[in-house]
Amino acid sequence: MTTTAQRPEHPEAGDIELTEVLFALSDPSRLAIVQQLASGSAGELNCQAVGGDLAKSTRSHHLKTLREAGVIRSTPQGRERLISLRREDLDARFPGLLDAVLTDGQS
Amino acid sequence: MTTTAQRPEHPEAGDIELTEVLFALSDPSRLAIVQQLASGSAGELNCQAVGGDLAKSTRSHHLKTLREAGVIRSTPQGRERLISLRREDLDARFPGLLDAVLTDGQS
Repeated sequence: MTTTAQRPEHPEAGDIELTEVLFALSDPSRLAIVQQLASGSAGELNCQAVGGDLAKSTRSHHLKTLREAGVIRSTPQGRERLISLRREDLDARFPGLLDAVLTDGQS
Repeated sequence: MTTTAQRPEHPEAGDIELTEVLFALSDPSRLAIVQQLASGSAGELNCQAVGGDLAKSTRSHHLKTLREAGVIRSTPQGRERLISLRREDLDARFPGLLDAVLTDGQS
């Protein structure tokens, strides 16, 4: 058994990398998840409610990519996880980026 | 010999896809090329002047990805090609996106 270095569950706001955020947003399914989270009034969604008809494994993969890039936060609650967009962190780090990306999705 | 369908050399402005632009910008070398093109006063650069120390094949690959996504225009001139950023097309299609991406690169 070897111990493998793991990425932190969520990068600190100051460690969020632009290229990783752009990559995370460059997949249509992941972009749709971000648009879904941004449009929700609740601010957070049960992970099972995210991503529409995606298969569970596909959804998990996309949520991991978004989480590791710093785009979303995943918070355990009971047996489930609540998913939210890290809008304040992203807006502070890359002003205007999320607005530009979300505006297009709504047009 | 079969004829393979080829992507157009440059997508029309209205056909530029957000996810393809985000993917094209999600690589540090490609992002650096875009920042180089945006910072130049001339507006266009000889393709050999683009991308710094990248190997020729690597540079060609990155320029192809950027061109097919609609981020840059590549114009033949004599035996060479001039590379320019499609800033007006991108600003019209995705207002604020390029500014947000370039602002981070300059900070």
